[in-house]
Amino acid sequence: MNNFVFYSPTEFVFGKATEMQVGALARKYGARKVMIVYGGGSVVRSGLLDRVKQSLQEAGIEYCLMGGVQPNPVDTKVYEGIEFCRREQADMLLPAGGGSVIDTAKAIAAGVLYEGDFWDFYIGKAKVTKALKVAVVLTIPAAGSEGSGNTVITKLDGLQKLSLRVPEVLRPVFSIMNPELTYTLPPFQTACGVADMMAHIMERYFTNTQEVEIGDRLCEGTLMAIINEAPKVMRNPEDYGARANLMWAGMIAHNGTCGVGCEEDWASHFLEHEISAIYGVTHGAGLSVIFPAWMTWMVEHNVGKIAQYAVRVWGVPESEDKKAVALEGIGKLKAFFSSLGLPVTFKELGVENPDIDRLADSLHRNKGELVGNYVKLTKWDSKEIYRLACAGE
Amino acid sequence: MNNFVFYSPTEFVFGKATEMQVGALARKYGARKVMIVYGGGSVVRSGLLDRVKQSLQEAGIEYCLMGGVQPNPVDTKVYEGIEFCRREQADMLLPAGGGSVIDTAKAIAAGVLYEGDFWDFYIGKAKVTKALKVAVVLTIPAAGSEGSGNTVITKLDGLQKLSLRVPEVLRPVFSIMNPELTYTLPPFQTACGVADMMAHIMERYFTNTQEVEIGDRLCEGTLMAIINEAPKVMRNPEDYGARANLMWAGMIAHNGTCGVGCEEDWASHFLEHEISAIYGVTHGAGLSVIFPAWMTWMVEHNVGKIAQYAVRVWGVPESEDKKAVALEGIGKLKAFFSSLGLPVTFKELGVENPDIDRLADSLHRNKGELVGNYVKLTKWDSKEIYRLACAGE
Repeated sequence: MNNFVFYSPTEFVFGKATEMQVGALARKYGARKVMIVYGGGSVVRSGLLDRVKQSLQEAGIEYCLMGGVQPNPVDTKVYEGIEFCRREQADMLLPAGGGSVIDTAKAIAAGVLYEGDFWDFYIGKAKVTKALKVAVVLTIPAAGSEGSGNTVITKLDGLQKLSLRVPEVLRPVFSIMNPELTYTLPPFQTACGVADMMAHIMERYFTNTQEVEIGDRLCEGTLMAIINEAPKVMRNPEDYGARANLMWAGMIAHNGTCGVGCEEDWASHFLEHEISAIYGVTHGAGLSVIFPAWMTWMVEHNVGKIAQYAVRVWGVPESEDKKAVALEGIGKLKAFFSSLGLPVTFKELGVENPDIDRLADSLHRNKGELVGNYVKLTKWDSKEIYRLACAGE
Repeated sequence: MNNFVFYSPTEFVFGKATEMQVGALARKYGARKVMIVYGGGSVVRSGLLDRVKQSLQEAGIEYCLMGGVQPNPVDTKVYEGIEFCRREQADMLLPAGGGSVIDTAKAIAAGVLYEGDFWDFYIGKAKVTKALKVAVVLTIPAAGSEGSGNTVITKLDGLQKLSLRVPEVLRPVFSIMNPELTYTLPPFQTACGVADMMAHIMERYFTNTQEVEIGDRLCEGTLMAIINEAPKVMRNPEDYGARANLMWAGMIAHNGTCGVGCEEDWASHFLEHEISAIYGVTHGAGLSVIFPAWMTWMVEHNVGKIAQYAVRVWGVPESEDKKAVALEGIGKLKAFFSSLGLPVTFKELGVENPDIDRLADSLHRNKGELVGNYVKLTKWDSKEIYRLACAGE
């Protein structure tokens, strides 16, 4: 096990009707004026926005509003938000939504206090040392951004999708998680969230770091819980218990609980970021195509942990033939994704003929000559994985 | 799943040589003068105390020292500490040790800022609303006190052992966890720690709250990791990986990660507190006697979760006969405890003829007419469980 720091100071307030606590919590964390950030109309239609406003008013907290954040959130909205936030002199960002909205709010929170271009943070030209406080009302469990210090933004000019991780500054001070708010999530988006949270766990789980049994078991347990609960939600979108389990699993998947003391991988995420940047697909759908392909490639190159995963998570019987065990596990993962209505090939993703050269060129231009850690991928390797994803292998 | 708040703001700094960061961390958290609290001579002999002092000096932090905290820590030491801390005007408590030392430091931290008798907090006469900061250098993974807001103190006069839980005030600001510091822990104490951390998980796991799959899986995974790693540590006390996994599992067992959204039980802990208060046994050893007895009693009264535990944690094959499944699981737990050199009967614990009436009277006087939640125990039930623990059932 490697040395590590685990620091997850966010106060998670979980359960029914918890959004009505947003005003009291904002006051507790010292807000004077919050900037509510949201996406499309569902937050308005569902009445959530009104309830949040009401709670803030009752607590004597001022607010201003910025809607219109799109999936795969872009830099232009961040620039707009920074300007708006400065003008309104808000002192806390309050995203109400999923990963796109939260990640946009985090970028604004850091950008407001920085004199230069906020994009400097994402390209490594500057470090985030301070930010406005961010607090969350979560409506889409997937990105895990409610409990992480991560944010992913796409630069429209050049379609560069980059991630930033500053846990000590960008973690939300509190996150309100009411599973009922996820009832109206369409089935496909629910399924994409499931793929995303599973990927967050597997990026940590597939590691060469030895003697990480506790991290492994927490990863495996969280995966098994998701595999158990997701079909219930697909059958009955208003199954409170299943929605609640999925929502919490999505947080656990990404706040650092899983994979402590491991060297993490993240190649699949980076392989996917190129797809969603170029083809505009939903991140989770891209992952359900790429992750099995990445694992299939790994069967030939570093089978160990893939086989353990097949046995412990999917109940594949142990055998001397680790490759066969691993492939059976990958088959079960793909069948699971398919059962949720997720794509497992580029074609099913709606990308008939992906430009593999362009994807791989962009990936290695953004992320360097070698990508990932479980096996460090060359551009040649990345192309092979993209090809496996065409064939659905 | 019940509504819940999860709030674990402690910064955990885990790994080799991390005690050398104590000075920098104390400064980061605003300390001017820390009061180091420790137990016997091992912290001195091992050189840990000198390294901690050195790190504090290098960071320009003043310190004062209070040693001599005993296992099953007592109120008289807390009074001494409160007086000493006030005299020295320390502004941070720094326990270096295990649960007894940390729990004493928490009691001092709360007591220093309270005009009345600190014992008021433990008997529910007053609430802890403020405390000095507590930071930890952990040397015994067992109590989980490094990541919890809990403290257990025994009042010498009357042998009343009571616990207090104030997560929002008494959680350590940081905890330094170097698994190497646990190498010198004697085998019996290591084993007692294993029983204690397993009990912390099971107190949460055995619940009637429905639809808690994610909490269950995290509990089961942590238990399986402990069961896998503990025998390695018994064979080779300097197995870094196994010590590291156990140390982190002990934290996860008690910081709230396990059993989110559940009504917790805690009857076994309360049954045990009477034993260690009256007979002075080690808490973990008492638990390894009481917990299987409690579970055996539950087979007849509420078998559901006991059977699930047997299947998922111990790999007992599923069967229609849930009672048989459950009993087989309990048998495996007892065999596991025995293999670590732990007692599973009162006799093995060194208490040939426990005064069951006195134990049960004291328990229900301290904790009320009904104890626990999985099945609420009457005094009659508690006596039956104590009797089962005599027979080792």
